[in-house]
Amino acid sequence: MYINHISSYIPSNRIANDYFGNLNGLSDEWILERTGIKERRKAGKSENAQTMGIEAVKNGLEDLPYGPEEIDLIVGGTYTPYDTIFTLGHAIQKLLDRSDIPVLSISTACSTFINAVEVVEGYFALNKASKALVVLSEHNTLYSKDEDQKAGHLWGDGAAAVFISREKLKENDFAIKQVITGGAGNVGKASDSVFLRPGYEGFEMPFGRDVFIKACQYMSGVTKRIIEENNYTIEDIDYLIPHQANLRITKNVAESLNVDPEKALSNIQYLGNTGCAGAAIAMDENKSRFKSGDVIVVTVFGGGYSYGAMLIEC
Amino acid sequence: MYINHISSYIPSNRIANDYFGNLNGLSDEWILERTGIKERRKAGKSENAQTMGIEAVKNGLEDLPYGPEEIDLIVGGTYTPYDTIFTLGHAIQKLLDRSDIPVLSISTACSTFINAVEVVEGYFALNKASKALVVLSEHNTLYSKDEDQKAGHLWGDGAAAVFISREKLKENDFAIKQVITGGAGNVGKASDSVFLRPGYEGFEMPFGRDVFIKACQYMSGVTKRIIEENNYTIEDIDYLIPHQANLRITKNVAESLNVDPEKALSNIQYLGNTGCAGAAIAMDENKSRFKSGDVIVVTVFGGGYSYGAMLIEC
Repeated sequence: MYINHISSYIPSNRIANDYFGNLNGLSDEWILERTGIKERRKAGKSENAQTMGIEAVKNGLEDLPYGPEEIDLIVGGTYTPYDTIFTLGHAIQKLLDRSDIPVLSISTACSTFINAVEVVEGYFALNKASKALVVLSEHNTLYSKDEDQKAGHLWGDGAAAVFISREKLKENDFAIKQVITGGAGNVGKASDSVFLRPGYEGFEMPFGRDVFIKACQYMSGVTKRIIEENNYTIEDIDYLIPHQANLRITKNVAESLNVDPEKALSNIQYLGNTGCAGAAIAMDENKSRFKSGDVIVVTVFGGGYSYGAMLIEC
Repeated sequence: MYINHISSYIPSNRIANDYFGNLNGLSDEWILERTGIKERRKAGKSENAQTMGIEAVKNGLEDLPYGPEEIDLIVGGTYTPYDTIFTLGHAIQKLLDRSDIPVLSISTACSTFINAVEVVEGYFALNKASKALVVLSEHNTLYSKDEDQKAGHLWGDGAAAVFISREKLKENDFAIKQVITGGAGNVGKASDSVFLRPGYEGFEMPFGRDVFIKACQYMSGVTKRIIEENNYTIEDIDYLIPHQANLRITKNVAESLNVDPEKALSNIQYLGNTGCAGAAIAMDENKSRFKSGDVIVVTVFGGGYSYGAMLIEC
């Protein structure tokens, strides 16, 4: 599999830490120290997970090395849905006006990016698709509560589009060498640490510490595994792109792996936790830095729990 | 692929048509004539899409021809989620205590069953799994409004579990000969006919007629296609299991295909529209009738829109 192109969209409305001071009593300094977040973006009133996903795709279409009429699989990813029936994937299908291709939307919380790529890998193996579009979009602020002292300040909104082909289409396509995913719903406080129950209690993170510990453990573990299974060493990693949950988690994962912290890419400082879109947005932001031969590991962890990693050779 | 076993769960609380008379002014006769529904089941106060999915799996474990520790892939399917972070799939993973296997949850509305089987097919093709558990569960009454004259009376709750292996494991396994799915989010009123927008307007079906027409058209079309692609004729079909949306849709699909209406299996009369679980529940209810050599077509249509078919040889 090859990543042909990647694009993203973030809403224009910036929310600085100061906004939360009056609502949940947390200071700018406190939030910055504990999370690394200085500000995050909030979707506008007419925006949602679908409109942001659509904008991310539109931002990619111009430089896409083929026409959208060649896309033959769409996988949407979100845990903050606008509509669970006309799903994110279907909204993208409508945008592209591509009839009768497989379309679905999935969630494994913040790890959905890698699960979506693995679903694509399956369709490619079946010869049921050859050019897939993965759209990750999170509208966290629709469900989160600004006054929630435990997590209200963590969330940001944003979306990314990842165009993936079975065959190599151009010289600078990024090769996806391996994809690993794993659920961990049977581990720790997976069922209650962080939840989004639309018909019940909403979106909360009562056990953030358990999420923090498991995120560090699983992202470093699966990174080690994917490196070893591909006969690389940690020194071979040019860039590490972890799920953008918390700068302290990113630093912890890099340290425990003995990866130079400079190699760990982050956007959490100015975007907050954009859920399953965060790592893909980071890929888009940094794509011009990636040189031929660079080895990138994307590693993710989702509340719920689940984890994954993707090894990329540029 | 082979279906090794199938099981289901329906809540005990029966809601007869008379219940709606005072709420939305629709009589028992009117509902029965327009939809074929006499009653439906409603989840109890402590039940939800996850607890029902868990009960469906538990009902299957006793007669499963292998231990749950051999299951190496879980795909949850629901558009009426209890939790979009600790998803249905993760709840099943917790039940089975199966560590580090791929787990995800998907939605293509009422057509999710077949999309989930196609995701399984992909994992099998990749050799990343060999024994999958697909769990379909809908808690429609959590989101629907009883007083909604257009759709409140249509919905029921229920769940099913489908155990699928890559290899044939026993003599009476059902062979899945082909799976076809297609999104149709770019067609008609797909974006607005029926929606479940948890953060906005809720669960409504303002354009039921468009859904009705497209459901008839797509379910008969994809059934014809899957029959032809496998060199069968319509006469070879022993059982047709359509998505359980409306008895008039089922009759229309059977008539337009020239399938004996007796061959079309239905549970909508006593379960209502149980979303993506309906056709799988019908398979479970009728499995003892299926004889060696029987040809079954499961065909589905989801609001949003999307469609699919699965050809089974018993």
